[in-house]
Amino acid sequence: KFAYGKSYRDIIRSIFEKNLEVPDFILFPEKTEEISSILKIAVENNIKIITRGGGSNVVGAFDQKPPAENVQENFAASVNNSSEISNEKKNQGLICSLNMERMNRSVEIDEVSHTATFETGIYGPQLENILGEKGFTLGHFPQSFEYSTLGGWLAMSSAGQESGLYGNIEDMVLWIKVVTPSGIIENIDFPRHACGTGLQNLFIGSEGTLGVITEAKVRIHKKPLKYIWKIALFKNFETGSDAVREIIQSGIHPSIMRLSNEKETMMFSLLKKSEKKGIQTFLEDFFKNRLKAKGYKEPCILMMRFAIRNSSDNKIAETAMDISKLKNGFPLPSAVAASWETSRFSLPYLRDALIKNNVLIDTFETITYWKNQINLYNKVHNSLNTKTDFFTKGGILLCHISHVYETGGSLYFTMMVKQEKGNELNQWLNLKQVVSDSIFENGGAISHHHGVGKDHQFWFNKQIKSGASKLFLAVKNHLDSENILNPGKLCNE
Amino acid sequence: KFAYGKSYRDIIRSIFEKNLEVPDFILFPEKTEEISSILKIAVENNIKIITRGGGSNVVGAFDQKPPAENVQENFAASVNNSSEISNEKKNQGLICSLNMERMNRSVEIDEVSHTATFETGIYGPQLENILGEKGFTLGHFPQSFEYSTLGGWLAMSSAGQESGLYGNIEDMVLWIKVVTPSGIIENIDFPRHACGTGLQNLFIGSEGTLGVITEAKVRIHKKPLKYIWKIALFKNFETGSDAVREIIQSGIHPSIMRLSNEKETMMFSLLKKSEKKGIQTFLEDFFKNRLKAKGYKEPCILMMRFAIRNSSDNKIAETAMDISKLKNGFPLPSAVAASWETSRFSLPYLRDALIKNNVLIDTFETITYWKNQINLYNKVHNSLNTKTDFFTKGGILLCHISHVYETGGSLYFTMMVKQEKGNELNQWLNLKQVVSDSIFENGGAISHHHGVGKDHQFWFNKQIKSGASKLFLAVKNHLDSENILNPGKLCNE
Repeated sequence: KFAYGKSYRDIIRSIFEKNLEVPDFILFPEKTEEISSILKIAVENNIKIITRGGGSNVVGAFDQKPPAENVQENFAASVNNSSEISNEKKNQGLICSLNMERMNRSVEIDEVSHTATFETGIYGPQLENILGEKGFTLGHFPQSFEYSTLGGWLAMSSAGQESGLYGNIEDMVLWIKVVTPSGIIENIDFPRHACGTGLQNLFIGSEGTLGVITEAKVRIHKKPLKYIWKIALFKNFETGSDAVREIIQSGIHPSIMRLSNEKETMMFSLLKKSEKKGIQTFLEDFFKNRLKAKGYKEPCILMMRFAIRNSSDNKIAETAMDISKLKNGFPLPSAVAASWETSRFSLPYLRDALIKNNVLIDTFETITYWKNQINLYNKVHNSLNTKTDFFTKGGILLCHISHVYETGGSLYFTMMVKQEKGNELNQWLNLKQVVSDSIFENGGAISHHHGVGKDHQFWFNKQIKSGASKLFLAVKNHLDSENILNPGKLCNE
Repeated sequence: KFAYGKSYRDIIRSIFEKNLEVPDFILFPEKTEEISSILKIAVENNIKIITRGGGSNVVGAFDQKPPAENVQENFAASVNNSSEISNEKKNQGLICSLNMERMNRSVEIDEVSHTATFETGIYGPQLENILGEKGFTLGHFPQSFEYSTLGGWLAMSSAGQESGLYGNIEDMVLWIKVVTPSGIIENIDFPRHACGTGLQNLFIGSEGTLGVITEAKVRIHKKPLKYIWKIALFKNFETGSDAVREIIQSGIHPSIMRLSNEKETMMFSLLKKSEKKGIQTFLEDFFKNRLKAKGYKEPCILMMRFAIRNSSDNKIAETAMDISKLKNGFPLPSAVAASWETSRFSLPYLRDALIKNNVLIDTFETITYWKNQINLYNKVHNSLNTKTDFFTKGGILLCHISHVYETGGSLYFTMMVKQEKGNELNQWLNLKQVVSDSIFENGGAISHHHGVGKDHQFWFNKQIKSGASKLFLAVKNHLDSENILNPGKLCNE
């Protein structure tokens, strides 16, 4: 339970493999001081520390194998090398899983300044409950929300579903305390300042390689009075994407903004067969009767959720719909969003069930500048078409745009195809390699919000420039000179 | 001209001192490659490099003297030590002012993705002109706008007058190229990503100590259709501050939001004697006749400017006024902002004229969390009252809140008093020490947006935690192992 994350590869291995890799022991620290002591002992005894938040990562973040020698040439070799685990362990020392779940206290809530300080082992629901009792929200709702922690969000550069309004984790954090083998690091604690360089950003996205983040002060917000949905259908993904871009570039920030491609829009009507009030009803009706005649043969659905905090927010929502109409957006009643909203944290459960029922299902995501958005989307699709038998075997590629910025938006893909019996891992490795190569070659980030872990390290090392990786390693060497913290992750020497 | 910035101390010295410190020579590079060569030669010949943007800094950023040995005990000693310049120079090598003004090209403007890439020696007006021709703006307007550069903004953690809408320089920058003695550093270039740590933030606010930023890609925005002003008077600074906080915490972001204290509000009617249509007319009328009867004896003026980009922005401006009315905000016609708007970049000229006419005038600024805002404001005022003869000698302390965030707002002070003939520098050193001590002791940042330089280094070194300063020095040692880049600035060993 404590050894694996939730990547497709993790799940497949936990089902099919007999000799599971597990850490040698698990520690459950309760205080920052205990972590300082643990790191001191670890340095003295060559014990490797894999810090664990909620364990919901989908990128092989816990994988303990050192990278294969041919990591630069072959992704499969880098994640799946077959050398003896026992010998490696002998060389690399014992492995300790540092489980943060007992460090889950609320330290301070400042209702005037809208800040809250927590220990970082706190899970999403507990954090939101504590804030909610005082009428506040952090506004960070990744799909892993129920099973992820504040520390995990920080270490993995997390983005939540409501990032459009509340920003990503790096926008929310004001102050952190980090325990490293070289001592405790804290940044200067002000709402904003011009007092030297932004050192705290070194730890956002550091994936456990530089230190253990034990406390964080975050920006919080009054809970909105209510939320309203605005929904529109577009004739294709490209015009929908244009509408999304123009809305955000007009200075409008829905808390959620999600444009589904044709296939994902269709899937909404399949997912909830038993429910007749949701997206299904409307789409079935529109598809069969009205929309096709108007040119919406395979429409793309845009769902926007607006936080209503004051009397101008309703007007903002209307303005967004005005802009979408200029791109032939066909307005739908808000009720169609209800079924998505109630199930928005349950898709990971569905995924696990599908995997056990012989479906390969995996998600991957990227981001690029708007100018390259549709090109990247098409290239990823084409790569599966020309380099694999994914589509000929009935595979389905869903995609949506979410997490949008003035300068670009993330593309979130879901691929589903029948599992190849006895070849489950290699089948996935091949598909993952093809789509990741395509993202890398066509100007996409290898991850917008899932992080690097083991599954993306192969491309991350191609994407990061040499000067930047040397700088990272210099920082790593200063903070963790014995390389006990999640060794072998992020930049390889 | 190229040796000094624009701090009060710089100006006093340029007027009164005979032996001006000047760099040994000035270089005007035109390409990134030339800077690489310059740094290589500098390392080989122990030449110190002071990178210069527009030269508008007000914190002694160009000061070349090494810190005095008793820097931890006495601010005056740290900025004003009297040891022989010539001997020091012999020890520390030649000093080169690296003037970036010829690296002012526009590299790329992407009108779809709203990004623009420039060389960093470009001045504010030229940058805005290039963007303006295509209908765009960066939205970064520090008071130094006319005489400061993109590179200076990045290196000094700049904040502009319209930060409420467009953010600060760290929010605007997507990608940078930095030349360091250890090579060129570039960060991964996407609108946002989860691919490792935020290395680029190391260079924001690095004040020339880590490298020379030669190119930057920034986020740009369509120019608003127009701007509108909303103005209100409050009975005192505290209720005005509450209104500002509640407006921003309701999710409303005026591009400019500026609340003046009682003295600064009064000053508006003195500054423009000849003009009868601006703030003066209204305030004179209101003060004498109507407002005093209603309890606005010494009112505080709040000026808010809203960018009108779409049909909902007018409604947002009205909502802000609704909130201010709940704090007894008395609405004034928008026209009163006109005189401030036309003179908003001219105050530095007025300052220079006043200094030459025997007035000590200096500005200093800080930020704290909202909960501590009025306390900090009062403590700074009290420190001048109890520890100096500032007020008994007729000194005036102006202050405004600007650059507001959900969690806090900056306090921008202006102090004015008659110069002490023959004692100009010590008079300033004493006042600067008293107000800076007060800021430091009462929970304020030693700078919100002016930077550290020499004038704030004494307190910066108290404010930064030891682990963070060691980390900074490790980064410095990796990038600039021979310590040729602006030596002695930021963290001292």
